[in-house]
Amino acid sequence: MTRILGIDPGSQRTGVGIVDVDTTGRPRHVFHAPLLLLGEGEFPQRLRRLLDQLGEILDTYRPDEVAIEKVFMARNPDSALKLGQARGAALCAAVLRDLPVHEYAAKEVKLAVVGTGGADKAQIQHMVGMMLGLQGKLQADAADALAVAITHAHVRSTAQRLGISTTQAWGRK
Amino acid sequence: MTRILGIDPGSQRTGVGIVDVDTTGRPRHVFHAPLLLLGEGEFPQRLRRLLDQLGEILDTYRPDEVAIEKVFMARNPDSALKLGQARGAALCAAVLRDLPVHEYAAKEVKLAVVGTGGADKAQIQHMVGMMLGLQGKLQADAADALAVAITHAHVRSTAQRLGISTTQAWGRK
Repeated sequence: MTRILGIDPGSQRTGVGIVDVDTTGRPRHVFHAPLLLLGEGEFPQRLRRLLDQLGEILDTYRPDEVAIEKVFMARNPDSALKLGQARGAALCAAVLRDLPVHEYAAKEVKLAVVGTGGADKAQIQHMVGMMLGLQGKLQADAADALAVAITHAHVRSTAQRLGISTTQAWGRK
Repeated sequence: MTRILGIDPGSQRTGVGIVDVDTTGRPRHVFHAPLLLLGEGEFPQRLRRLLDQLGEILDTYRPDEVAIEKVFMARNPDSALKLGQARGAALCAAVLRDLPVHEYAAKEVKLAVVGTGGADKAQIQHMVGMMLGLQGKLQADAADALAVAITHAHVRSTAQRLGISTTQAWGRK
């Protein structure tokens, strides 16, 4: 059994989702939450809050591996900077705990979860809910975080069947 | 005596500079270095290296406060994202050690160090070297890091003379 934490960092909100995956590759839902970066206080304080919340989740659920979406292109410099800061903080929380980090392009996530690289947000929310047997509508950032975790679960079990190692050295000392 | 660490995060390189400041407000050079984010390995690994290097400097020199440049506008989304990730990691290293973080706009730094908000890089390198009595040409990122530390030293001692507190709650639990 491998526990995978998916992270979807954003300039406004960072989503997290955790799935367990066994040798069959079928993911089982463990936890999901949208972590807010917004709120009271100056930026360093809000970043600290994100880092603390993420650290608490990492220490509570103890995932074995982390999956995060690659950012290929941001809309504008201002949101790219904010997104980058949130992504940097999320990566820090993971690498400080020596967790291997795997990056997937948005297209790879859509392909793995919906079956087409051109899927939209609503389709991802729907399919993630279906795959994990969750009731009700998932919050979008949490759905994206679960989606990247599911993607890594698929890639991982496929690689294992083919005898290929996916364990990256990222984050290992 | 207060020890101030200045950080100049960049998409390619992150500079650090440390000054001590007494009640006169005159800064004394302690340390400076350009920390590279570039190099071997995938991005999370390089971010980890930055975090480790910065952590080592924080734990060795034990600054009381941290000063960092505000980013008002990045050139393009791609470099803004990279800059954001480096800035996020640098802030993490500081806030994880409960250090208060102060942000200064580039214009404030130029005004404090050169006396005009429109100063260029070469003027900053020159003035920082002069103010701290350093021989030879300073590396540009390290000069910028020392410049933001000097700016905070000035603001701090001016505020103290006027009886205003500059101690922010950022990074404090």
